[in-house]
Amino acid sequence: MKYAMSALTTSCLMAFGSHAFATEAPKNIIYMIGDGMGPAFTTAYRYYSDNPNTKVVEPTIFDQILVGMAHTYPDDDTYVTDSAAGATALSTATKTYNGAIAVDTHKKSLKTMLQVAKEKGMRTGLVSTSQINHATPASFAAHNESRRNYDEIADDYFDVKIEGKLPVDLMLGGGVQYFKRSDRDLVKEFGKAGYQYTSDWNKLNQIEQLPALGLFADKAFPHAIDENPNRLEKMTFKSLDLISKNNDKGFFIMLEGSQIDWCGHANDIACAMKEMHDFAKSIELAKAYVDQNPDTLLVVTADHSTGGLTLGANGKYTWLPDEVKKVNSSVMTITKSLLEANDLKTAWSQHSTLELSKDDLVSLSKAKKDGGEVLYKAINKVINTATYTGWTTSGHTAIDVQVFAYGKGYEQFIGSQNNTQIAEKLINFIEQ
Amino acid sequence: MKYAMSALTTSCLMAFGSHAFATEAPKNIIYMIGDGMGPAFTTAYRYYSDNPNTKVVEPTIFDQILVGMAHTYPDDDTYVTDSAAGATALSTATKTYNGAIAVDTHKKSLKTMLQVAKEKGMRTGLVSTSQINHATPASFAAHNESRRNYDEIADDYFDVKIEGKLPVDLMLGGGVQYFKRSDRDLVKEFGKAGYQYTSDWNKLNQIEQLPALGLFADKAFPHAIDENPNRLEKMTFKSLDLISKNNDKGFFIMLEGSQIDWCGHANDIACAMKEMHDFAKSIELAKAYVDQNPDTLLVVTADHSTGGLTLGANGKYTWLPDEVKKVNSSVMTITKSLLEANDLKTAWSQHSTLELSKDDLVSLSKAKKDGGEVLYKAINKVINTATYTGWTTSGHTAIDVQVFAYGKGYEQFIGSQNNTQIAEKLINFIEQ
Repeated sequence: MKYAMSALTTSCLMAFGSHAFATEAPKNIIYMIGDGMGPAFTTAYRYYSDNPNTKVVEPTIFDQILVGMAHTYPDDDTYVTDSAAGATALSTATKTYNGAIAVDTHKKSLKTMLQVAKEKGMRTGLVSTSQINHATPASFAAHNESRRNYDEIADDYFDVKIEGKLPVDLMLGGGVQYFKRSDRDLVKEFGKAGYQYTSDWNKLNQIEQLPALGLFADKAFPHAIDENPNRLEKMTFKSLDLISKNNDKGFFIMLEGSQIDWCGHANDIACAMKEMHDFAKSIELAKAYVDQNPDTLLVVTADHSTGGLTLGANGKYTWLPDEVKKVNSSVMTITKSLLEANDLKTAWSQHSTLELSKDDLVSLSKAKKDGGEVLYKAINKVINTATYTGWTTSGHTAIDVQVFAYGKGYEQFIGSQNNTQIAEKLINFIEQ
Repeated sequence: MKYAMSALTTSCLMAFGSHAFATEAPKNIIYMIGDGMGPAFTTAYRYYSDNPNTKVVEPTIFDQILVGMAHTYPDDDTYVTDSAAGATALSTATKTYNGAIAVDTHKKSLKTMLQVAKEKGMRTGLVSTSQINHATPASFAAHNESRRNYDEIADDYFDVKIEGKLPVDLMLGGGVQYFKRSDRDLVKEFGKAGYQYTSDWNKLNQIEQLPALGLFADKAFPHAIDENPNRLEKMTFKSLDLISKNNDKGFFIMLEGSQIDWCGHANDIACAMKEMHDFAKSIELAKAYVDQNPDTLLVVTADHSTGGLTLGANGKYTWLPDEVKKVNSSVMTITKSLLEANDLKTAWSQHSTLELSKDDLVSLSKAKKDGGEVLYKAINKVINTATYTGWTTSGHTAIDVQVFAYGKGYEQFIGSQNNTQIAEKLINFIEQ
């Protein structure tokens, strides 16, 4: 067990030639993590976003910048990581236990690449569609033995100073309830420390300089399919502008497509595809930034895959993205709506043009009587059956994830690597 | 729909620089296809083959030579390919309909890379653990509107001459019953044409020169887990020796790990891992050949993924390869054995050290009364539940597959590509 760094490094060097590793360090690093985004999600997204009016299947942004894959296992015998151990590997180059926020198996704090960047005088940013103190962003600027200690993690964003300075110059995401609490008002403390703060989404564009804190939801944003479908894209645009303006020393920013994972946990394919779309559009912006600023490196990966998604189910050789597109709300929202409705068919039609068979109506009607959880599963079944979407779990899986890179130094990420090696290479760049 | 060749090519060129495409053509091409080998299979194999006595997870041969991924959709609206359309894309650079053997959607014959190689005077070979006239090898040397026309496909191996010569210099696999038939004895015809023939596995090493035909099973070989676990490895060793000996003009050989797919269809994880092992060992031999003969290119990929395999099921964050290793027969073999047995527990212990709970014994005993099919499913459930292995289908899925390359010209395969582009690049090399 544990990771075979030297063997892998050797094999990469053998396969790709050492010349590929002689790259000068990029000035800026944009690190994007699609939480839960295993290879089935990017494949699905290609076919979901395919324009049916053209003869070609259009390649996606993922197809344009794929360079390799990564192994995600944590430091135990499960082989299946959670987002905390996954993000810790991706931020500190160290494998740890599931639930750990930038601490090792002995619960000792690990230095993160964001902290290294801050030490080097680079600007730092974290952007997320979950609460900003959720596992993935947390593993870049906090240290905690448990991802569940949300208050302590939020405290770390203020308390863990780097050479006397606050660690993160820009935070955009959700999480007001963890920052404004009965025991502590971090928003006030950040304000005193000079941070511009807003919790008003309409004022995102009024943030004009760093440091800044934007918390746009009590906990996480709603799912993209239910509300504000381009919130990550908009935060990506704004944050790249803010963090690069008048910046001599470069920046490190991590942007997370947080809810790909959550839709995966919910086995909700339409929800997942809308999250993928927001993430893909954000990557397109980041790639455009690199095109304009070629001293920048963009690396995109995932921490793990979620839900055991596969495209093809129940023995049939097909997957039907056009049917997925007919669903316009999350299964959670549809469930709530149907629970409240007198007429199932009318309520359904407010959320989906996917046709319900008589059998579907009977099964939904029967499920409704058994309560929300049963109805939720029944709706899920209707959509997954109609689209030939398969899932194996409400949790994560061990399958390797993809690695995408573009810009200065991208070639270091070609091939197969451990998730810790992605972090190693990035930290090496930041330290140069 | 259909494939976006130019857009993808452009993006690859942008991403990787056109210098990567200036490679001189390799003299020899070894093309290996893991039928049904989606990314979950190579991930699973890493953890399955991990040495539990070491602190590291040893990288596999796949990790050493991964360079990219490929899109597998056929030329229709299903997005899910079968092995015939998949292999046709991989052998002719043309997308076609499911079931097509090297013919296009108008059922017109397509020239395959093996045929181009033969025209160029290169030696050619096909090796498979299925019958040698099964979809994947067939798509390299035959043309038929349906993969099911096994007799006609076998005929093509003799009848479709290339400049007056028989197309394939070396064929090793199964399929005697399609070659020795009441209406035609192809074995005799090949013999008259100078082919050394054997159907005796113990005489594999007595084949001393080409042309040669070895058919070692009536249809396919048994599953590796049940019998002869290294048959592909042994055929790979023999065929590379035969095809390269006294060879000035180079060779093209396609070797298929056929039954990864079949174990996937059967949702049989232990079966799949043994097939992966035989395939992995064969790739190691091919890589060693490239190390000795650097004018050779090795490309490994899959036609599609099968079964919707994922590592992690039923909400638990784990996958247990050590439990998989306790199963020593295919589920089909275990089913037959249990059907015949008086004592289930004793019969089970002949095939597996996986512990059966009381509940398992009750469910197997009950299933046995309902016949082979029900018992088969019950055994599958015991193994998949114990190992946290998830499957979504008895068929194929649309997920992208991986691309592995090593040796001269490997860099052409870095990144994301259509399966047809793999063929284009190889045909381009062969034509040079």
